[in-house]
Amino acid sequence: MNHLLPISIILSALLLSGSRVYAEDGYQLWLRYAPIETPRLAAAYRQLGTQVSFPTSSETLRIAQAELVRGLTGMTGSRPVVAAAFATPTLVAGTPDGSGAIRQLSPGLPLEKLGKEGFIITIRPLAGRQTLVVAANTDIGVMYGVFRLLMLMQQGYDLTQANITEVPRCQLRLLNHWDNLTRYVERGYAGQSIWDWHKLPDYLYPRYTDYARANASIGINGTVLTNVNANAEVLTTPYLQKVQALAAIFRPYGIKVYLTARFSAPVEIGGLPTADPLDPAVRAWWHSKAAEIYALIPDFGGFVVKANSEGQPGPQNYGRSHAEGANMLAEAIAPHGGIVMWRAFVYSHEAPEDRAKQAYSEFKPLDGQFLPNVFVQVKNGPVDFQPREPFHPLFGAMPRTPLMMEFQITKEYLGFATHLVYLAPLYRETLGADTYAGGPGTTVAEIVDGTFHAYKMSGMAGVSNIGTDRNWCGSHFDQANWYAFGRLAWDHSLSAETVASEWIKATFGLIPGVNAIQRMMMMSREAAVQYMTPLGLHHLMGWGHHYGPAPWLNHAERPDWNSTYYHKADSAGIGFDRSPAGSGATDQYHAPVAARWADPRTCPENLLLWFHHLDWTYRMQNGRMLWDELCYQYSQGVDSVRFMLQTWEGLEDQIDPERFADVRTFLQIQLQEAIWWRSACLLYFQQYARLPLPAGLEPLTGTLETYQQQRFRYAPGN
Amino acid sequence: MNHLLPISIILSALLLSGSRVYAEDGYQLWLRYAPIETPRLAAAYRQLGTQVSFPTSSETLRIAQAELVRGLTGMTGSRPVVAAAFATPTLVAGTPDGSGAIRQLSPGLPLEKLGKEGFIITIRPLAGRQTLVVAANTDIGVMYGVFRLLMLMQQGYDLTQANITEVPRCQLRLLNHWDNLTRYVERGYAGQSIWDWHKLPDYLYPRYTDYARANASIGINGTVLTNVNANAEVLTTPYLQKVQALAAIFRPYGIKVYLTARFSAPVEIGGLPTADPLDPAVRAWWHSKAAEIYALIPDFGGFVVKANSEGQPGPQNYGRSHAEGANMLAEAIAPHGGIVMWRAFVYSHEAPEDRAKQAYSEFKPLDGQFLPNVFVQVKNGPVDFQPREPFHPLFGAMPRTPLMMEFQITKEYLGFATHLVYLAPLYRETLGADTYAGGPGTTVAEIVDGTFHAYKMSGMAGVSNIGTDRNWCGSHFDQANWYAFGRLAWDHSLSAETVASEWIKATFGLIPGVNAIQRMMMMSREAAVQYMTPLGLHHLMGWGHHYGPAPWLNHAERPDWNSTYYHKADSAGIGFDRSPAGSGATDQYHAPVAARWADPRTCPENLLLWFHHLDWTYRMQNGRMLWDELCYQYSQGVDSVRFMLQTWEGLEDQIDPERFADVRTFLQIQLQEAIWWRSACLLYFQQYARLPLPAGLEPLTGTLETYQQQRFRYAPGN
Repeated sequence: MNHLLPISIILSALLLSGSRVYAEDGYQLWLRYAPIETPRLAAAYRQLGTQVSFPTSSETLRIAQAELVRGLTGMTGSRPVVAAAFATPTLVAGTPDGSGAIRQLSPGLPLEKLGKEGFIITIRPLAGRQTLVVAANTDIGVMYGVFRLLMLMQQGYDLTQANITEVPRCQLRLLNHWDNLTRYVERGYAGQSIWDWHKLPDYLYPRYTDYARANASIGINGTVLTNVNANAEVLTTPYLQKVQALAAIFRPYGIKVYLTARFSAPVEIGGLPTADPLDPAVRAWWHSKAAEIYALIPDFGGFVVKANSEGQPGPQNYGRSHAEGANMLAEAIAPHGGIVMWRAFVYSHEAPEDRAKQAYSEFKPLDGQFLPNVFVQVKNGPVDFQPREPFHPLFGAMPRTPLMMEFQITKEYLGFATHLVYLAPLYRETLGADTYAGGPGTTVAEIVDGTFHAYKMSGMAGVSNIGTDRNWCGSHFDQANWYAFGRLAWDHSLSAETVASEWIKATFGLIPGVNAIQRMMMMSREAAVQYMTPLGLHHLMGWGHHYGPAPWLNHAERPDWNSTYYHKADSAGIGFDRSPAGSGATDQYHAPVAARWADPRTCPENLLLWFHHLDWTYRMQNGRMLWDELCYQYSQGVDSVRFMLQTWEGLEDQIDPERFADVRTFLQIQLQEAIWWRSACLLYFQQYARLPLPAGLEPLTGTLETYQQQRFRYAPGN
Repeated sequence: MNHLLPISIILSALLLSGSRVYAEDGYQLWLRYAPIETPRLAAAYRQLGTQVSFPTSSETLRIAQAELVRGLTGMTGSRPVVAAAFATPTLVAGTPDGSGAIRQLSPGLPLEKLGKEGFIITIRPLAGRQTLVVAANTDIGVMYGVFRLLMLMQQGYDLTQANITEVPRCQLRLLNHWDNLTRYVERGYAGQSIWDWHKLPDYLYPRYTDYARANASIGINGTVLTNVNANAEVLTTPYLQKVQALAAIFRPYGIKVYLTARFSAPVEIGGLPTADPLDPAVRAWWHSKAAEIYALIPDFGGFVVKANSEGQPGPQNYGRSHAEGANMLAEAIAPHGGIVMWRAFVYSHEAPEDRAKQAYSEFKPLDGQFLPNVFVQVKNGPVDFQPREPFHPLFGAMPRTPLMMEFQITKEYLGFATHLVYLAPLYRETLGADTYAGGPGTTVAEIVDGTFHAYKMSGMAGVSNIGTDRNWCGSHFDQANWYAFGRLAWDHSLSAETVASEWIKATFGLIPGVNAIQRMMMMSREAAVQYMTPLGLHHLMGWGHHYGPAPWLNHAERPDWNSTYYHKADSAGIGFDRSPAGSGATDQYHAPVAARWADPRTCPENLLLWFHHLDWTYRMQNGRMLWDELCYQYSQGVDSVRFMLQTWEGLEDQIDPERFADVRTFLQIQLQEAIWWRSACLLYFQQYARLPLPAGLEPLTGTLETYQQQRFRYAPGN
């Protein structure tokens, strides 16, 4: 046992066995708490830890205190001295109820603004010295404050003038796991589901706690454990007991569990002949199921439902509306304080309508019919998590129905784990989009956070990118997307640059290359748009798995699973006419957005082919013809990845060798695949355009025939 | 970056942030090289490292040298001083070709006995001092010697008198991965396949190297990457390039890659209308496929084939024999030095013959018909990796056909990852069994290692228990089974106790509890036999997944997938009559085994119900009636697990908290499931026996009906 051996021997062994003590395998995420290298800062932070008044009357506070100790120790090399109270504390943390010091300071603190989750980090005079204060109304608020404080320290933030008040803008900040009971993760690129259902509830991986801790550190307060397409079995008693065990771990971290409710559960596990939402036996079954769940998990969050979409059962099977279906569940769960998140991602197996229009057509007429504890959960765009989509037209169209935003964190259509694509710019683009629902300046964010329509509930959900991979997300940079989702769900006004910078410093340290990495991240999403689907193109990915280019795809079982459905390339041009002369999807937006997008001359060029079918020789604003611009866009995407790779290679001396090598290899793969995308798409479109590649661009490589013959039967996540 | 910070700060941060520097998560396996706590030993080992003459003219030797440095540094706290040569070395390692010192010593070393893989670790006078010598004829031999030396040090072995000569008893020591291209591992309880086919060949996980290193450390020299039921796609060019990348990593570790060959590949990926082994186009296709493989992987090992079994295609689809099928592949691969391992695990979809007899019936007549580069690969017992089976009757029945032993390391029928079942006693029981093929004393081991029949080839295969779980095997103790398989494949004469002791010391350190842990391990397999299938019972596990008890199973699609097929319990008694009056399976064994097993009075009681159907009141040798003995056996199994748990709980102060807690929880699960097994089986059999539980035994818990209603649709590995 190590503890029997002289420390000097342990240390020399550790130091000599390698240059560092452990490999940077990414498991620590943004909670590394690496030693602060600026002596002045380290000293200041160390000083803060000399007398910490931090009473711990709850498990949540014990966790927060332990985190503070862990963080300060890691960053400063000194373990802080912590007690319930010191006469002259250097740092005080707590609530007015639990901490005498905070109670004493509270008249001067804007606690009334903080609600149940907000916190203050500030400097206040106490017992004759300037004291750092972390205060909140609740234990969870204190925990959030501690995590924020430690993150600020990882940024090298000067705390001597600290005066920070934070309150989350959305009430619910949820991860949606698309994890099946088999541990297969739909659209997962990071290994298996971290939920080991077979060993639950008896064996609890340490990872479950680390998961809760990571989420709490960025303000995520709920998790939907199971896939929207999941089996009803998760609602049977043995599985609910497993869920109960996870809920018990997450509870002190302020995280509630939610489950998917398969609409047909009363038939599948309840033995009923129908799942008709108006059938009394069905209603009774759900009431009783809700009672069973809440007996096990008193703070159970609620249900997510994917109904009548992609072959899933739903109320329409019984001639009932989405509202009737959602309300039936909402009634069952309301007495216990639960909510229903009813997904708007529906498209009928029969409807010939433009798929981009269907959710709006289906849900807009139902506005006002949902019970108060129902969210309609809406994807950021009207199709399906494409590299770029316009915002979803339901935002601004449902004044009486709280809309929950659904982003995808996992990169189903964005190159999987090996492509570096930082998603905060995509999230920000949607959140900042102006719906004009109340005239100019009505952003999607103001609708989602409830301020515009005065929704009683607000929330954002992110489809998780988490799996059993040691680095959690399949790649080091995909951790930034988890982080960014959490941060933007907490505060959608943060810039993508700010979030990137926070994450980089916590993840790689206060290195000179922070700006270079930030630049890579900030350009990465546009790069992916350009090498995959520039100018408003969309859904050109391989069939089913969505890996790689397949603009030629035209034999899928549904028309709208084909690439050709979306790009409509022919000798006359390319693009989906969604103007009033076409599918009329532009009409689903408020004026003046509708009119602006309906005209190719005013439509933003980065959405041009989303809304218009245009001649190959159509003149772009820069004077190039459309075909040439398409070629330049694809080339620009490849060049951007090349630049990202070069940038990274220049950072070799600043990054630990493990992560440096991993990221480099992934960028090499990304470059190779960007080139593949460019060549495959341009060779394909060139058949119709019958125009040459503009002079000066790199030649295309490979042959269309070869690309079309490639098969990726075992691409992950399908 | 850590390297910019004063070491003292790093160290204090590390030391203060927890009592130890990293969590014992099991990733290091038996290669932990923890500091040696006995000062005398540590000093002696440190002294050995002061002048190490170790020339490195190959990648293999560089790896071996790096391992020596890593191990000595870890164990002694001092980095050894290594160079190609010292005038007065303390340790010399190498081959006569590569090392001057070894060349100088070689007249006194028994190098001629070592072959291509053996090594010597000995003390020899050199330049006036007693020098530790690690010598071999090949670089791989040197590597094996270094790994062995480090393992001896982890045991606290006194090297001052070292004189060890080791030569592997089997030529081929292989892992068989039952890993699919989807990364699903059939019968895997440790996460996904470690082969990330999607990211290969570009991205190479560090784990691939760690895998090679762990295998090399125990002498494993080959790995079959894919499941015996796998798709032919692995033989297509893109996948062969992925395999090539793995082979390149494994090569310097002395490990060859093998693949499964799906017999129908010429149809499935070759576009031929038939896979008939006598069809010239089929033969040409395999020749060309072999040439393609060897162009990419010049040292490719060969093919494993599961043909005409459990629905797999094979030569019998075309009216050809197993020998014709195997020889066709063997011919294709022979010019390149490859081999074919043709599995004897066949049972027909139609044959009404006792399943335990079918492999023998099928293969025995083919003896002598196989080409020289064909193994027939035979499971240890005639049914399927049960907790206890008699040895397979083919051992000793195929004098002209080299038989490769197939053990299962993964615990398909032995409680999965949460049951502690140390398998070396099972392996040893089979290897030590006397076949009487050449009169008394002809053990299975002597047949497998080739000595008895003078086979030209010898080998053992173990079905891998490795997955992406951080601890590799799903549980810490399952690592011991990987270790034990490797050690026994190298030297089948090692006792299970010795192997356990080696593993414990390397895994947990030289703690006082070594003997207690060894006792737990040594009793664990018999415990599992007793609480699952005592007295020769077999195959009572749940349908498909094989999780938990299901003696009532009688509706599977094949008769021999039913538990009732195997136990045949009725009011008249229990057991499968395989005597000459029954199925006659005993006749497949040599005299006197056949006669001994044919009579219940001479049949070993631990195989009694394997071979005999006996009345519930049949008198056992101890005077108890059969029903009572069955009850005692099940009870004994549960009591043993209880004892194991108590033993472990007594070790809390000797084991790191992470592994202590993990193992304790798993033992608690095992106890709970042992009780479940006992109650479910005895309640079920009691229906037929109509006899009471003997007085003094714990009452049975639960009801048969409840047990029968339980469903485990998502049990892993199915």
